[in-house]
Amino acid sequence: MVKVDMTLDLPTIRSAHERIRPHIHRTLVLTSSRLDEASGASLFFKCENFQKIGAFKARGATNAVFSLDDATARRGVATHSSGNHGAAVARAAKLRSIPAHIVMPSNSAKVKIRAVESCGARVVFCEPTEEARESACADVIGKTGATLIHSFENPDVIAGQGTAVVELLEDVPNLDLVMCPIGGGGLLSGTAVAAKSIRPNIRMIAAEPENADDAAQSFRAGRVIYTEKKFTIADGLRTNVGEPNFAIIKRYVDDIVTVSEKAIVSAMRTIWETMKIIIEPSAAVPFAAIQQGKIDVVGNRVGIILTGGNVDLDALPWNL
Amino acid sequence: MVKVDMTLDLPTIRSAHERIRPHIHRTLVLTSSRLDEASGASLFFKCENFQKIGAFKARGATNAVFSLDDATARRGVATHSSGNHGAAVARAAKLRSIPAHIVMPSNSAKVKIRAVESCGARVVFCEPTEEARESACADVIGKTGATLIHSFENPDVIAGQGTAVVELLEDVPNLDLVMCPIGGGGLLSGTAVAAKSIRPNIRMIAAEPENADDAAQSFRAGRVIYTEKKFTIADGLRTNVGEPNFAIIKRYVDDIVTVSEKAIVSAMRTIWETMKIIIEPSAAVPFAAIQQGKIDVVGNRVGIILTGGNVDLDALPWNL
Repeated sequence: MVKVDMTLDLPTIRSAHERIRPHIHRTLVLTSSRLDEASGASLFFKCENFQKIGAFKARGATNAVFSLDDATARRGVATHSSGNHGAAVARAAKLRSIPAHIVMPSNSAKVKIRAVESCGARVVFCEPTEEARESACADVIGKTGATLIHSFENPDVIAGQGTAVVELLEDVPNLDLVMCPIGGGGLLSGTAVAAKSIRPNIRMIAAEPENADDAAQSFRAGRVIYTEKKFTIADGLRTNVGEPNFAIIKRYVDDIVTVSEKAIVSAMRTIWETMKIIIEPSAAVPFAAIQQGKIDVVGNRVGIILTGGNVDLDALPWNL
Repeated sequence: MVKVDMTLDLPTIRSAHERIRPHIHRTLVLTSSRLDEASGASLFFKCENFQKIGAFKARGATNAVFSLDDATARRGVATHSSGNHGAAVARAAKLRSIPAHIVMPSNSAKVKIRAVESCGARVVFCEPTEEARESACADVIGKTGATLIHSFENPDVIAGQGTAVVELLEDVPNLDLVMCPIGGGGLLSGTAVAAKSIRPNIRMIAAEPENADDAAQSFRAGRVIYTEKKFTIADGLRTNVGEPNFAIIKRYVDDIVTVSEKAIVSAMRTIWETMKIIIEPSAAVPFAAIQQGKIDVVGNRVGIILTGGNVDLDALPWNL
């Protein structure tokens, strides 16, 4: 367990934004009259699929890597990640000209492995279990002196992830509701603090696959619950929610809803076909909750963070 | 053969733009640092895949339908189309509250049939040959008094298609080169007149599948050549170039290059994976020519019209 002093606030997130601004895209906000009509709401999609490395993870990793002092940075960085965070750390390390060691499960999507390697980082493969990932990563750190950039418990990562909703609320100030998916909770905790600080009456709702519903269970119980994960197509959301993240979530988030695998695939396909953009399954989870009527959004202005667009096109799930 | 008085000029295209402006999207222009690096050029993608009905065809059809006088319009409109133009005419007719009859080959992509039907137009299926389409359409017109809105030989359609590059050159004035695909030549003829009128020294190059290279052959011969078409994945480009279109193309276009089926699929996949947007195979043809080194673009600022994004996701061609 990584122990973190969680004093996350809006000024910290705004500093992160200044720090990463030269290195990330300010992504588009797209709308769709067809999806508005179908949902009865006004939906504003923050397109982090267009972000550097194809996912919002570029924000947090860049903030964490650029927050290191020079001496520490020179020894390199390491992380374990099913993909997008790994690519984000690899890219940030390349921008800072320091070594990066990325531990990846051997069954990671090819497109995600390529993304890491193309940044010149060292990929260390391991068995696809949480334990194997952590032990391989500890091993690398022991040998190299690299700094761990944890994908969701690192406070600089969380602050960086919170910058997407800052931009969204600059572009669309009068949102009633913000939605994002929840895996480990890095995005959700950063987003919730930023959104509620900027606009205290905004609703903040997260969505999660039924097959990895630890965060929803934890939210109901008021404490972190560790669940046995079933398979979910939303591979970015398989992780259990982190303890420091949950402390923030408990305080700032209004609800966590869950959706079936079928609903995720259907939502993803709807967005591909209607909006002509590519999003990954994890990114479709909040819209799936809207499409399935799991949240009342009628008449609301809803901001949705589309978290990423890295899909293995050779393994599309239409027939799931 | 439809005989047309071809006095297309920039003021006509600007009038078309005013006429259709309330009914179409001003589409985004996207860039990609990775594709710029790979090509050695600066590429500006005009995203008509984000256009109403998912393709630039909304422009020409809307201009044609809204150019009809009231008495003529009331009798309805008809067309034959493999898909996008049909959807565009159906939508324009709905906006003007007049009947539309769309003749479609029975093997059209499902997503395209749905798009037409969802506008309330009548779909008339026919055999997938040029002759069957024309005769079914003539039959409908004979019975209903509807006006034919030809997909590329109609001068109002051509003027409407020319409006995309007008917007592109407003957003990126100093382009060296504009590229678009060529099927019947509606987009190319409108684009060429607009681009060369606004910026006389601009290069205008079209790209075409090798398997439907009638326009390239015609360009070399200096007269329209009708070729036997082989299968091409770029279904929007199977049509032979029109006579009135070719008269304009001969005068305004600098070159027409061809690309293989494999190159089209590879270019489409590159754009999906890199830019996270969905484009249809026809839309990938100009970028395929760049990717294959068929045109010298190094150091140039290149505008590329991404013509549409209506793909049948159940029939993806990655294994072509």
